[in-house]
Amino acid sequence: MRVFIVLGHTAALTPDFTLNDLPGSAGRLDILCRCVTAAFCLSHGIRRQINVYLVLQDRITIRLDGRYLRHLNPDERSTGALLQKALQKIQQAAPDLPDELRSTPGIFVSRRGLAQLLAQLRRQVEQIIWLHEGGRDLRSAELDQSSAFVLSDHRDFSPEEETLLGEFARLSLGPQILHADHCITVVHNELDRREP
Amino acid sequence: MRVFIVLGHTAALTPDFTLNDLPGSAGRLDILCRCVTAAFCLSHGIRRQINVYLVLQDRITIRLDGRYLRHLNPDERSTGALLQKALQKIQQAAPDLPDELRSTPGIFVSRRGLAQLLAQLRRQVEQIIWLHEGGRDLRSAELDQSSAFVLSDHRDFSPEEETLLGEFARLSLGPQILHADHCITVVHNELDRREP
Repeated sequence: MRVFIVLGHTAALTPDFTLNDLPGSAGRLDILCRCVTAAFCLSHGIRRQINVYLVLQDRITIRLDGRYLRHLNPDERSTGALLQKALQKIQQAAPDLPDELRSTPGIFVSRRGLAQLLAQLRRQVEQIIWLHEGGRDLRSAELDQSSAFVLSDHRDFSPEEETLLGEFARLSLGPQILHADHCITVVHNELDRREP
Repeated sequence: MRVFIVLGHTAALTPDFTLNDLPGSAGRLDILCRCVTAAFCLSHGIRRQINVYLVLQDRITIRLDGRYLRHLNPDERSTGALLQKALQKIQQAAPDLPDELRSTPGIFVSRRGLAQLLAQLRRQVEQIIWLHEGGRDLRSAELDQSSAFVLSDHRDFSPEEETLLGEFARLSLGPQILHADHCITVVHNELDRREP
């Protein structure tokens, strides 16, 4: 299972935004939509052994599980609509509910932040990797197919996030600093090439 | 100069579509928008030494030139609006006009198809490369930084296109068949790593 964790520092926490303005009123939700497409979409199908966690302002986490995903199209707007439905679901739940709720097939939402997510993933994957331009080159690193990769949106990692991530290996992807979704594509390509 | 040519087999030829439905009424223009983002957008800036040619149904070509591009945002909808403006521009021109017209900064449009474009690029770049799942591995190929890469949208290359492209080297990107925009990201990463 490959896992991608994307930190959305400005992403909307409530569903009251228009799909016509994902970069603006939805707080750069367009970035997270493109990450979902990069993580799951192949030319003719969906990568099934993938989990994506979108961590919105360290308060709400939307999980997309490739094994159960349906209705996922590659365009930003339709993905934005699925994320909006997940935000509707959590908005209707009790404010102290700790559980993950199912929104649509393969999409789950909870009031969880990065610390809780990392604690959980530590038990579920072999490696957690912090994608960081200062890290070692991905191509020369030992990689397990069961790895979680942590990325940020258009904002830098916050000091609190850097503290949480400090214990994990840092890997970089090349000489240019890429958008989060492009990072996911490069990681997939490297892992695809290493699959037995 | 890196060049990407994306063949849009179903893309709208006229601007009478809604930005709310790039996959539908605009004929999968969403794919071409994501290709533009992948070709030009870095985390904090625009790749300037890039030309992208979007060949719509082999009848209209929209060229985006990184040296002059302005107002390019990474989201699909705003890129779709720029392409729509280019289609308005060519719609207003005489039907037999052979020239390229400037639409917005860095965006040019003409009534040209793939054959004419390849004839022109043969004089402008060192290599033309056909990205094709049956080709040799990109990582082990000799690559010039002045190369043009030809990709298709969600449709296969047509027999006529295969005839036109048959003389060029075919390269593949890995074991999975990727979306066109993801192919562009992988090509960039390989060329970035090889830059002196």
